[in-house]
Amino acid sequence: MDLWFTEYHTENARFSIKVDKPIISVKSEFQRIDVFDSCDFGRVLVLDGYLMLTEKDEFIYHEMMTHVPMAVNPDIRDVLVIGAGDGGIIRELASYDSIRRMDMVEIDKLVVDVCREYFPHLSCKLADPRVHIYYEDGYKFISSKNNEYDLIIVDSTDPFGPGENLFKEDFYRKCCNALKASGIMVNQHESPYYPDDALAVQKTHKHIKSIFPIAMVYQAHIPTYPSGHFLFGFASKGLDPIADLNPGWASFGLNTRYYNTDLHKGCFALPNYVKELLNSDIPVIPPGRYKT
Amino acid sequence: MDLWFTEYHTENARFSIKVDKPIISVKSEFQRIDVFDSCDFGRVLVLDGYLMLTEKDEFIYHEMMTHVPMAVNPDIRDVLVIGAGDGGIIRELASYDSIRRMDMVEIDKLVVDVCREYFPHLSCKLADPRVHIYYEDGYKFISSKNNEYDLIIVDSTDPFGPGENLFKEDFYRKCCNALKASGIMVNQHESPYYPDDALAVQKTHKHIKSIFPIAMVYQAHIPTYPSGHFLFGFASKGLDPIADLNPGWASFGLNTRYYNTDLHKGCFALPNYVKELLNSDIPVIPPGRYKT
Repeated sequence: MDLWFTEYHTENARFSIKVDKPIISVKSEFQRIDVFDSCDFGRVLVLDGYLMLTEKDEFIYHEMMTHVPMAVNPDIRDVLVIGAGDGGIIRELASYDSIRRMDMVEIDKLVVDVCREYFPHLSCKLADPRVHIYYEDGYKFISSKNNEYDLIIVDSTDPFGPGENLFKEDFYRKCCNALKASGIMVNQHESPYYPDDALAVQKTHKHIKSIFPIAMVYQAHIPTYPSGHFLFGFASKGLDPIADLNPGWASFGLNTRYYNTDLHKGCFALPNYVKELLNSDIPVIPPGRYKT
Repeated sequence: MDLWFTEYHTENARFSIKVDKPIISVKSEFQRIDVFDSCDFGRVLVLDGYLMLTEKDEFIYHEMMTHVPMAVNPDIRDVLVIGAGDGGIIRELASYDSIRRMDMVEIDKLVVDVCREYFPHLSCKLADPRVHIYYEDGYKFISSKNNEYDLIIVDSTDPFGPGENLFKEDFYRKCCNALKASGIMVNQHESPYYPDDALAVQKTHKHIKSIFPIAMVYQAHIPTYPSGHFLFGFASKGLDPIADLNPGWASFGLNTRYYNTDLHKGCFALPNYVKELLNSDIPVIPPGRYKT
């Protein structure tokens, strides 16, 4: 059977993956959840038609969301993860013995149930005794928190649908309140390349910059996300991701496939067009000379 | 009309771009040449069915091939460019007044003619009096050269078809001979992500490493190339791309949209899986946990 999954990165650009076998298609209260086995990317998770992860390259996203903050503050003890129902972030965090609590807030229990069954490589640490799962809206959950966490990781879907609230300025203010004085917030920050995504990058950065004393952006190569050029936000009340990088991170002895401390420093060095996008108040001009 | 150009990144993964208008399709002695206007990427050049460049993101490739070596040795005077019939590399080089000679060797005159007509933003500096174009096989051209160039840029197509010779060990040896003692060679080094491309990365690096005392690899985000994760080789007889980076590069006053000197340092920091690929003698294991 010649079966393909296609994601439209814009109306006029699309990426298609050949499906070996559909595994499950279910609808939760919040979204449609699809899992299939692909020929080249292993198992794939799709929410509302958008590719969330593939077994081939999920390690890039999850390592970059986790080890960057952990290498800046090795004293992180209490962590809040918002979204991340697949378990990938928890898997990476669980490798640090120094962490004592991982609260995970996922709005959609069915995502967790599906990933527990079909993505054991991702969900393998959800049963860690330090993990507490709350099936709630992340926006509501965080509203009551104050000075409680060392690290908040916002592993949201896109800025529409169930994840929409997690891109609002007010949400980032609540995150700031929920963090201790040495707190760090890391968030998925979309891609700078296609115009609609770039606009989300710009808006998100503007919000975070207005709240956190330190608001920086770093990048990674994630081939199955639109454009393959993916950004993350690093915001804190004082810690600088480069100046405060702990040179002893390697002594944790973690086996990473993407992250290393040289790359940590390198990933904050952004292309000029991305810097312009982040620093500009006017709507983004897409890269390229052909428009100028 | 609903017209799409599709490139297969593997047999089981493909990227498609909506075509606004086909511009020209011709066949040279060496390859088929197609030009079309796309809805999202401006004008696009395709050789033998493979996407060579789009107006939207060609600046990334051309800046990274040119400014990285130029920032390491600002005394570069004599440059050889192999391939690069579209003129993009020459456009970037021509902004340095310090360069006195640019020899360009392109096997296919029709590529140059097509780009002169349909890609004026790329070919705009081919008439610079310092440029000498040779319509010859790059492999043959370089065989007679000795101690002549400060910089060689190998802007080849892929390791099959007309560009095949430009990936052979013997070719890199000839490049080494053609370089002066402070010489640098930069080459397009394919992508590390899909298995066939990764194999080419590994082979190419092995060849270059066996010939040049310094052989390093750097990366960029080029969204319209397979996986978006693209590599370049930096090889030299002694100059180190980081230690010898000229801190005064910014004084050239060039208006770059991707390259900057922070990014120069950052782009040599490779993910672990790419380092493993480059340092391994056994055939590549594609990234991802699902195979292990």
